[in-house]
Order: sequence, then C-alpha cells, then structure tokens
Amino acid sequence: MTFALLARLFLNFKIKLQMDQAVNEFNDYRSKMNERIMAGDNLVMKRLFNLDSNTYSDGALSVKTKEMLGLVASMVLRCDDCIKYHLQKCYENKVTKEEVFEVFAIANIVGGTIVIPHLRRAVEFWEQLET
Amino acid sequence: MTFALLARLFLNFKIKLQMDQAVNEFNDYRSKMNERIMAGDNLVMKRLFNLDSNTYSDGALSVKTKEMLGLVASMVLRCDDCIKYHLQKCYENKVTKEEVFEVFAIANIVGGTIVIPHLRRAVEFWEQLET
Amino acid sequence: MTFALLARLFLNFKIKLQMDQAVNEFNDYRSKMNERIMAGDNLVMKRLFNLDSNTYSDGALSVKTKEMLGLVASMVLRCDDCIKYHLQKCYENKVTKEEVFEVFAIANIVGGTIVIPHLRRAVEFWEQLET
Amino acid sequence: MTFALLARLFLNFKIKLQMDQAVNEFNDYRSKMNERIMAGDNLVMKRLFNLDSNTYSDGALSVKTKEMLGLVASMVLRCDDCIKYHLQKCYENKVTKEEVFEVFAIANIVGGTIVIPHLRRAVEFWEQLET
Amino acid sequence: MTFALLARLFLNFKIKLQMDQAVNEFNDYRSKMNERIMAGDNLVMKRLFNLDSNTYSDGALSVKTKEMLGLVASMVLRCDDCIKYHLQKCYENKVTKEEVFEVFAIANIVGGTIVIPHLRRAVEFWEQLET
Amino acid sequence: MTFALLARLFLNFKIKLQMDQAVNEFNDYRSKMNERIMAGDNLVMKRLFNLDSNTYSDGALSVKTKEMLGLVASMVLRCDDCIKYHLQKCYENKVTKEEVFEVFAIANIVGGTIVIPHLRRAVEFWEQLET
Repeated sequence: MTFALLARLFLNFKIKLQMDQAVNEFNDYRSKMNERIMAGDNLVMKRLFNLDSNTYSDGALSVKTKEMLGLVASMVLRCDDCIKYHLQKCYENKVTKEEVFEVFAIANIVGGTIVIPHLRRAVEFWEQLET
Repeated sequence: MTFALLARLFLNFKIKLQMDQAVNEFNDYRSKMNERIMAGDNLVMKRLFNLDSNTYSDGALSVKTKEMLGLVASMVLRCDDCIKYHLQKCYENKVTKEEVFEVFAIANIVGGTIVIPHLRRAVEFWEQLET
Repeated sequence: MTFALLARLFLNFKIKLQMDQAVNEFNDYRSKMNERIMAGDNLVMKRLFNLDSNTYSDGALSVKTKEMLGLVASMVLRCDDCIKYHLQKCYENKVTKEEVFEVFAIANIVGGTIVIPHLRRAVEFWEQLET
Repeated sequence: MTFALLARLFLNFKIKLQMDQAVNEFNDYRSKMNERIMAGDNLVMKRLFNLDSNTYSDGALSVKTKEMLGLVASMVLRCDDCIKYHLQKCYENKVTKEEVFEVFAIANIVGGTIVIPHLRRAVEFWEQLET
Repeated sequence: MTFALLARLFLNFKIKLQMDQAVNEFNDYRSKMNERIMAGDNLVMKRLFNLDSNTYSDGALSVKTKEMLGLVASMVLRCDDCIKYHLQKCYENKVTKEEVFEVFAIANIVGGTIVIPHLRRAVEFWEQLET
Repeated sequence: MTFALLARLFLNFKIKLQMDQAVNEFNDYRSKMNERIMAGDNLVMKRLFNLDSNTYSDGALSVKTKEMLGLVASMVLRCDDCIKYHLQKCYENKVTKEEVFEVFAIANIVGGTIVIPHLRRAVEFWEQLET
C-alpha cells in the first residue's frame, strides 16, 4: 500500500514534468525565434512586435477580456501557436475552465467544425497549464 | 435664423432617417432570408440556427462579453454581415465606443491590414446605430 | 375576379422578369470580364481557365457530383460569385432542392455560422433559378 | 529463394504495421481528446458534436457523396486532421482511388497550389488506408 | 460625318468620366472613413495606420516591387478594396499591363479559382485607371 | 588551444549537418510525395503541377521578383511548406537577407500577427539555408 502510494506519487510527478516540458518547449522556441527575428533588424517588424504587446494592455477593456478576444480570434483563424500563447495569458489572468470553454464554444460555432482539431490541442494545452 | 434652425433640424432628421434605413434594410433582408432558409426544412440547418442563438446567451461569461467575442471573430474572418449583426448586439448590450474600438484594434492587429476595409464599414454602421 | 387574376399574372410575370434579370446580370458581367481577362493574353491565366473547365467534366465522378463538390468548396471559402456559378450548374444538372440544402448543411457545419450570410444569398439565387 | 520470400513477407508485414500505427495513432488521439472536450461539459460543444455526426448521415444524398463533400471542404480549408477523418470515411464507403483523386483535383483547382502540401499528406494517408 | 465624330468624342468623354467616377468614389469613401477611424482616437489603430504606410516605402526593395507584393497578398486574401488600393499604387509606380497580369497569374495559381471573381473586378479597375 | 579549435570546428560541422538535414528532409518528402501524386494519374493534377512551374519562369517580371511574390502569398495564406519552398527559390535567386525581411514585413502587416508563428519557422529555415 505504501509502495502503491509512492508509485502513484512518482507517476503524477512524472506527468507533471512532461506537461511542464510541453509548455516550456513552446515558450523556449518562441523566445529564441523572436530574438532571431529582432536580430533581422527590420524596423517594421520591430514596431509591429511592440504594437502587438500594447494591444492587450489594460484600457477600456480589462486584460482578461482582451486575452479572451485574442484567444477567440486565434481559434477561428486556426493558429495553434497563437492559441497556446493566449491560453497561457488567459490562465494567468484567472479565466476559469468554464469561461474558457465558452470562448471555445463561440469559436467553434462561428468558425465551424474545422476548428475542432485545434480545440483538441487547445484542451490538451489547457490541461497542461492546470496541472 | 429661425429658418436656419428649421433647415438644420430637417437635415438632421433626414440623416437620421437614412441611417435608420441602412440598419433596417440590413435587418429586413436578414429576417426575410432566414425565413426562406427555415422553409427549406433541413433539420441540420434548423438545429444550427437554434444552437447559434444559445451560444451567446448568459453563462459563465456575460452576454456583453460574448457579443464582443462574436464581433472580433467576425472581424478577423472578414464577414461584413456578421460584423453588423454583432455590432448591433454590442450596442444593445451597452458596449461603449471606446470599448468597441479596442475590439477593433485587436481584430486589426491579429488579422492585419486586410481587416481595415471591413473596419471602415463597421465604423460607418456603428455611427448609424449611435445616431 | 378576372381583373384580380390578370393583376396576379402580371405580378408573377414581373417577378419572373426581375429574377431572370438578376441571373442574367451575373452571367453577363462574368462573360464580359472573362473576355477582358483573356484579352490580357497571359498564358498562365489562359491555361488555368482551360483547366478549370476540364476539372468538372464527366469522369469517375459524374458532372452532378462534381458540381456539388465545387459548390460546397465555394461556400466554405465564402465566394459569392463562385457559389452562384456552381448553383446554376447544379440546377442544370438536376440537383433537387432537398439535395442542395444538404450541400448547404455540410458547408455551414464545416465552415461555421460565418457561412450563413452567403447561404442567404445562395438561397435567394436558387429561388431565382427555380422561378 | 525461400529466404528472400520470407524476408519480403516480413518487410511487408513491418510496413503494414507502421501504416496501421499511423492511422491508429490519429484515431486514438482524436478519441481521447474528444472525451476530454465532452468532459468540459459545455452544452454548445456537446450539441455541435452531435449535430456534426447527423450532418453526414444518409438523406437525399448518400453517405458516400456527403463524405466526399466533407473531404473537399476540409481540403480547401486546409485542415489536415479533418482531411484524414473524411478520407477514412470515404475509404469505408467504397470511394475508389480514381474517385478520390477527382475530389483532390477539384480541391486543388478551387483552392490553388497552397492545397498541394495537404494533398501530399492526404495521398500518404490514403495509401496507409489501402495497405 | 462631323456629327458622328462629335458623338464618338462625347461618348468617349462620358465613359472617361464614369471611369474616373468609379476610381474617385472608391478613394473618397476610403479617405472619409479613415478620418472617422482616426477620430475614434484609439492609439493602436493610429500606430497601425502609420506603420502600414511605412511598410511600402523605399528600402532594400523598391516601392514598385513592394506594391506588387502588397497586390499579390491582397489578391490571395481576396480583399477587393485592398486590391484596388495596390492597383492604383502599382499604376502610379509604372507597373506595366504585362507585369500586372503576371502578378495576377501568381495570385490565381497560388490562391486557386476562387480568386477569379476578384480578378474580374481587378481587371475592370485597372482599365478604369488606364483610360 | 588546438584542441578547442578542433572542438569548435567539429561543432560547426555538426550544426551544418543538422541544418542541411532539415532542408534535405523537407525536399525529400516533397519529391517522394509529388511522385506518388503523379502516379495517381489524374490529368487535372498533372496539368496543374505543370502550370505551377511555368508561373514562376522568367517573363515581364524576373524569376527573383516572382519568387518573392510567391513567398509573400504563401506567408499571408500561412502555408509553411509553401513558404519553405519559395524561401529556397529566393535564396537561389540571390534575394538578400535584408530583402527577404522586407517581404516578411509586408506579409506580417497585411496578414497580421497570426503570421508571426510562420515567420518564426521561416527565419529558422532561412538560417538553415544560409549556413
């Protein structure tokens, strides 16, 4: 019994590590390549990156609302990496599971069943954030 | 002077009528054709229409937030009629001009400058709702 | 009574004329501009136009099936003129109203509610073909 | 000679296993994540999944025709997982190789050469279904 | 005979006026609504408009090349207003008819036959610029 | 010191090999599957492949310009494999790093921030071509 408990703890710990790894790998590649893009020294790209960050800052709408808007836009346009990015931001800004599923529902109704494969990967990533 | 005032009142009234007309024409065509679609008596289409209405009802997220989500999704997918529909719903649900412009900003950053022509028509329609 | 009948006949005739006009206007503009494109004398465009016609000719699949495939593809890509073109071809190839609505249903489930405004115009055009 | 025959049989068997594996992996992930989505307990998503299955059931059009319609829609919208799903359904419903290539041709003419990378993966998956 | 000549001159002049009108109407609506957007006083939108102009200025690539890049991007994304805008800029930057048709050909091969309806309107607008 | 130099040379060589491998793997899969498509013996697909090659040949516009047009079209349509293909062609046709970044900038302004994940992979592939 003690052994079973230990085995289970170990298994949970291993799953947790793998999940963190999935999130970390995504973030690491993202950061590394953003640096490579900046190194290209193209003024338009630099300013677009800058503008992109400003878009989601607190204003008439809260950061939480804006991140949900970014998420639904990314889902209907079917951009997996954009979805992951905004899922993280939603998670950090206390969007609940019930709320995020209502965002998913709107995306799938507006964008149709071709959004479903992206939803599968989104749900998987959300569960990795939650663990 | 009294005459100038009258002329101005009349002009404002005429503009108001034209604007109402633009909104009404959109709504009339929409209703008429939805009826024609329902008359086609296709079960999948009927259930999809029904499901569509349910998607935006009050839940973990408010109707106001959901309508803004519907708006941003419609903008990045560049569907003028969908944009008009959600603009009306946003307006009815007390989204302010400042808020709706922040939704526009996210749509244009995520979706790029090809969204701008749709933004022009959206701003025109929003002003027709406001008058 | 005889007068009422005449009035009704006249009205139906007028509607029929207007509907034919909508279909004809679409076809006339299409033909006129295709000629202008051919006059541009670009070899790639000429061969693409030629290839396009061959794609829908009888083969392992019937013309009727191919035109329904062209229709559903046009709907999910939300191209009104392409939809009208394939609707005409479907109509000529004896696709029934029930069948065309099943094509519509697939397009709207796969492509989502942003397809609905195009569906409205498609149903309108189909009724113009039927009268 | 007997040895060469055995070696060949063994190699074919190994290839068969790898191909089954590609198809199975796709189906397993799909099933697992669909369960996770259902566990989210969002009514709109549940009803959309239900509606999706009904869309392709026998009606005025046969299941075979409907699955080809689903396939061409998935190809022009460039959704690899949707393509794989409908390819399996087409295969089960006795769509021949010649027929499936005519569906491919329509998708590539309507959707352009950006569909070709998805066609490559579709042809690979089709061959995995055929072995 | 003198009369026929006069009649012809008058007709050409009338066509010229109508064509100018099509180009002018497009530009007028565009300017008017851009002002309305700026009046919304949203910082992100203002900076995006500013950045948009900078993107097409002379750099490692010439303005002419950049405008052709903007044109082909607008065509495959099927944005009529964006196409008209870049067609004007191409025309001002001495892109020849032969060159613009080669841009059209790339757009139609990459984006498929759903680009053709937009090509029809593009050719019509180009001819309005040329007269 | 001699050892450090050797170690460094060895490391660079290993990186070079890995990069070549990424480019080669892409090209090998592409060639292999193109052959499988041709083996399908569909006349429309064969002619489309043929037409595709002709589109980018020297004409009123140079091959270099046409490949940049193909690249920007592929980026806004967010097709990673198409991007890689045209990046190779651009590289072979002496497009400089500065020029390719100006193409990237136009794609990201027109198509919005959803193009950025594709830009990351494009910059990675470009660096693999450069080494």
